[in-house]
Amino acid sequence: MFQLDLRLENDSFLIGELSLCQIRLMNCRDFPWLVLIPQRANLVEWIDLEREEQHQLSDEIAITSHILQALVTPYKINVAALGNQVRQLHVHVIGRYQSDAIWPKPVFGYDYALYEEEEARRQLYEFKTAFNSFGR
Amino acid sequence: MFQLDLRLENDSFLIGELSLCQIRLMNCRDFPWLVLIPQRANLVEWIDLEREEQHQLSDEIAITSHILQALVTPYKINVAALGNQVRQLHVHVIGRYQSDAIWPKPVFGYDYALYEEEEARRQLYEFKTAFNSFGR
Repeated sequence: MFQLDLRLENDSFLIGELSLCQIRLMNCRDFPWLVLIPQRANLVEWIDLEREEQHQLSDEIAITSHILQALVTPYKINVAALGNQVRQLHVHVIGRYQSDAIWPKPVFGYDYALYEEEEARRQLYEFKTAFNSFGR
Repeated sequence: MFQLDLRLENDSFLIGELSLCQIRLMNCRDFPWLVLIPQRANLVEWIDLEREEQHQLSDEIAITSHILQALVTPYKINVAALGNQVRQLHVHVIGRYQSDAIWPKPVFGYDYALYEEEEARRQLYEFKTAFNSFGR
């Protein structure tokens, strides 16, 4: 049975679900940072998914990228499935700007600022609205 | 026309080609580090590829992951398309170990050691042999 890793759960807010993945907003005000978690049990690597699910993950990375482009117009989108800290398979899709806090460095390991409550609510509302048009 | 970014070219060795991507070995002795570069002109983001090509990229990430697992048995595989330094679309597929130089930190930005000539030759031979069985 799929169970969300506790660290992922604590570090982020639920936006919604696509066919394969739960979509979450990282509690990070420095970058628009989304995380896709395929809702299947015991996944660690990309290749732990069946091939059709890998393609679905690719489609959901694409949907997420298009939503980032539409909502926050990033200069570059970072896509990454690392898993060194949290082993459960998850894919980061992050909007980056030449003006952001640590450009061009990767965001991983950076001690980012958290959202204020009102900001988080607004961001969540915007992303929920955008993803709803793609949801299952 | 596809043209490989000069920095990618200088930092890595050609292993071979799959249907979509050129596969290269980073000149880095600290981790088994492969890079997939889709051989299409003017790509920056994942979503600059057509959907079928995105699925092919996913398939080639999977092939590369299986080859890493078969040859060097990593504890975790890092998959990442960042592009903050080199804008041309490229996907890192990196084998990581709990015993490696900077585990669990990401490899990006780390000042890694280069291969010695003999090591590079041996690594290239092994990866070329493995990819040849998947090549076009």
